[in-house]
Amino acid sequence: MRHPGPTCCALLLVLGLCQARPRNVLLILADDGGFESGAYNNSAISTPHLDALARHSLIFRNAFTSVSSCSPSRASLLTGLPQVGGRGRRRTVSHFGAFDAVRSLPQLLSQAGVRTGIIGKKHVGPQAVYPFDFAYTEENSSVLQVGRNITRIKLLVRKFLQTQDDRPFFLYVAFHDPHRCGHSQPQYGVFCEKFGNGESGMGRIPDWTPQTYSPQDVLVPYFVPDTPAARADLAAQYTTIGRLDQGVGLVLQELRGAGVLNDTLVIFTSDNGIPFPSGRTNLYWPGTAEPLLVSSPEHPKRRGQVSEAYVSLLDLTPTILDWFSIPYPSYTIFGSETVQLTGRSLLPALETEPPWTTVFGSQSLHEVTMSYPMRSVQHRSFRLVHNLSFRMPFPIDQDFYVSPTFQDILNRTTAGQPTGWYKDLHHYYYRARWELYDQSQDPHETQNLASDPRFTQVLEMLQAQLAKWQWETHDPWVCAPDGVLEEKLSPQCRPLHNEL
Amino acid sequence: MRHPGPTCCALLLVLGLCQARPRNVLLILADDGGFESGAYNNSAISTPHLDALARHSLIFRNAFTSVSSCSPSRASLLTGLPQVGGRGRRRTVSHFGAFDAVRSLPQLLSQAGVRTGIIGKKHVGPQAVYPFDFAYTEENSSVLQVGRNITRIKLLVRKFLQTQDDRPFFLYVAFHDPHRCGHSQPQYGVFCEKFGNGESGMGRIPDWTPQTYSPQDVLVPYFVPDTPAARADLAAQYTTIGRLDQGVGLVLQELRGAGVLNDTLVIFTSDNGIPFPSGRTNLYWPGTAEPLLVSSPEHPKRRGQVSEAYVSLLDLTPTILDWFSIPYPSYTIFGSETVQLTGRSLLPALETEPPWTTVFGSQSLHEVTMSYPMRSVQHRSFRLVHNLSFRMPFPIDQDFYVSPTFQDILNRTTAGQPTGWYKDLHHYYYRARWELYDQSQDPHETQNLASDPRFTQVLEMLQAQLAKWQWETHDPWVCAPDGVLEEKLSPQCRPLHNEL
Repeated sequence: MRHPGPTCCALLLVLGLCQARPRNVLLILADDGGFESGAYNNSAISTPHLDALARHSLIFRNAFTSVSSCSPSRASLLTGLPQVGGRGRRRTVSHFGAFDAVRSLPQLLSQAGVRTGIIGKKHVGPQAVYPFDFAYTEENSSVLQVGRNITRIKLLVRKFLQTQDDRPFFLYVAFHDPHRCGHSQPQYGVFCEKFGNGESGMGRIPDWTPQTYSPQDVLVPYFVPDTPAARADLAAQYTTIGRLDQGVGLVLQELRGAGVLNDTLVIFTSDNGIPFPSGRTNLYWPGTAEPLLVSSPEHPKRRGQVSEAYVSLLDLTPTILDWFSIPYPSYTIFGSETVQLTGRSLLPALETEPPWTTVFGSQSLHEVTMSYPMRSVQHRSFRLVHNLSFRMPFPIDQDFYVSPTFQDILNRTTAGQPTGWYKDLHHYYYRARWELYDQSQDPHETQNLASDPRFTQVLEMLQAQLAKWQWETHDPWVCAPDGVLEEKLSPQCRPLHNEL
Repeated sequence: MRHPGPTCCALLLVLGLCQARPRNVLLILADDGGFESGAYNNSAISTPHLDALARHSLIFRNAFTSVSSCSPSRASLLTGLPQVGGRGRRRTVSHFGAFDAVRSLPQLLSQAGVRTGIIGKKHVGPQAVYPFDFAYTEENSSVLQVGRNITRIKLLVRKFLQTQDDRPFFLYVAFHDPHRCGHSQPQYGVFCEKFGNGESGMGRIPDWTPQTYSPQDVLVPYFVPDTPAARADLAAQYTTIGRLDQGVGLVLQELRGAGVLNDTLVIFTSDNGIPFPSGRTNLYWPGTAEPLLVSSPEHPKRRGQVSEAYVSLLDLTPTILDWFSIPYPSYTIFGSETVQLTGRSLLPALETEPPWTTVFGSQSLHEVTMSYPMRSVQHRSFRLVHNLSFRMPFPIDQDFYVSPTFQDILNRTTAGQPTGWYKDLHHYYYRARWELYDQSQDPHETQNLASDPRFTQVLEMLQAQLAKWQWETHDPWVCAPDGVLEEKLSPQCRPLHNEL
């Protein structure tokens, strides 16, 4: 038995095979975080705490979110399920929530005797589906305080640990950093990089030593225009990532100080791509690729190594259940079919590089007004994206719209000036129905191979994989846009005679 | 004071100015019902009970739902608000619900001392927003039993009345008839017209005397193809409407028998257009025009008369609050602006024909997969529809898709045969962004005048009215599809440089 958990531990203890110490999980989530860290070879930013965690972790290089939007990503992360945990943003006019029958990670853990805690941005609902024993979130606190004030976060972690009983724990620290802020609290800067920095009117976060960056020193990712506006945007983002990094250090130090870090599986990742063009709300690489560090006290073998395995944030629920040896229950949400997790435990990867090659994506909407359903499959270097509403323009979300980077693209486009960008707005808005990219030859996903006859076989194989996954995950868009789903008897797609 | 209600009645009673008898409301809703009744001059169908009610009512000829889909229509009916009571279907994969802060009619009535009851199809949620003191709905019963078994409905009304205390009551009887049934319980026929008819395996509803119609005898509305398939579909619908009609008679008889009918405002209407092409889920006339009968024991003056006033189902909440003399509370849902009802009480129309000329429509989606937002304004005979997703095909819902009428259109189109229909599928799927019709010259809405220079002024006036209403009702789509809504500071639309 590789992972003795709470249920079998009592028995193993009797047999002298198990320590009495509970095994815990710390899940740390960045908000719109990307690869701006030394751990992921960005040499322009200083992230000593993430780098230290990475040296103690298996570093996944091909980890992907299944949905590039805050609430549904968090819902899929906490349920292991696409589609049903909440389709769009929660705490907005969109008001999306999980289906009442969904079994979430905090529910399953609690029922199995694990104490659960959340500190920071929750962004999923309803409460009955996502209950936590200990909760300091935007639902009862200021999200700036519980999500960006790293001293407050440190003290909440301390409070959680001080009130810990003899159960194992699952602590979910969901930073609000490095999310944009210019749309909601512009007084703190575009990334809230000034919040708590000690300047006049900004307050002071005692544990934070702000780092500032010169726009000329940032690394501009290929999908961001290399312009003064975008560089200034990135420099502000770096400062906020620095606060996140120091916060991660403080959280780990609290566990270390309480003597539980060596009993705790630590996972660090982010909910979706960075809030730049082709990033968040897109199913391109910049929108879906995520940092993922997994550090296990019981799996020292591959610490500091890089895994090339293709993994998904849908794998986190199976991983955490595996760590606690909790089986996934048999139940239904719609009709008679038992709910199945399509993800897998990542723990075996901590021992041996696994041969995993395929991950899926499923984006339906960000705000309710932004219906632009997309489905994707990544198989090794090939990525296929199916844009179901391809005839309409890709929708731009409010906080990205007002960002300096996007405003600069808009203004330059209007003025007929060069944008410094690898795309143009027209093609960004209007996308082909099928997009197929081979990142081994075309890392920036600029050559759509979907209509290239040399790739017909690849296209058809990926289309078939995607359709199979959609049926398996009860995707209500499975027949879109060419047909109507007939659900009674045996579910099937019936054509619209639509001539799309 | 025209309408002494429960709050002031005690005082007036002391003064000898008010009877002790409480004033009640009975709201009867048909499900996908239309103008198939003698009350609305359909001579092919027999609906003696609706006709009798009409003779005792003001008959509105220009009543419209603001949204042509079951759940959001019921939500708008029970809140007086578009947009916030639940945007799409509730008890499906769509899982739409009201915002928690919304104040609904049952809440407001209950707080003011009115007992509330619902029998039949509820289809809105969550429970906390739509509480009823007495409830037999699909949430605790078979919807066939509480929505189509008119004997069961009669007995539930009797139970409600037998348990009535000295408070006034609001009883909402939401029939499931004449909704289609072929997609879910095909064994009962396409409109559940066989359910309870006494034939083998169909069960028997004791109080129902089924009427059958020959396909050759039905009246085919202009928007339905005159084909054998559609005529058979309509004949089945007529039989189910007959059950509804007899159910209405039974419900009224229960109130009469309990001695409360003469203290009760009776309203009969339907949630959306009939489930035929251009009907339900469309904002054309067949999708939005509703029967509306209002019968007041205190307003005998216009009984049996027809009103030409343009009224909306959004007017029902103000009407019912007015009847009980309950003020609408001051509260907010988003941000700092107080929620305002945009509808008006219909009670003055029972005295004098009012000069009301304008109603609005707001359809966002039916199922979550069917995002096709539309906004409309009807001003006298002019109707303007704004199709926000006009580049994508209009989505076809599942139960209409499998209907004999639509299958016949599909099959004939595929075979290249004449469809007998006033439209063709291509134009039904692909719609102009703006559609402007003048029903005084073009009752079937076939000539789009939006680009006709002679109607530029009308177009611009209606566009301005529509935009004003969208801002007033906090419509998150107010900037779509050309712009992005910026909500902070003063809300404004910012352009996409989109070249739609």
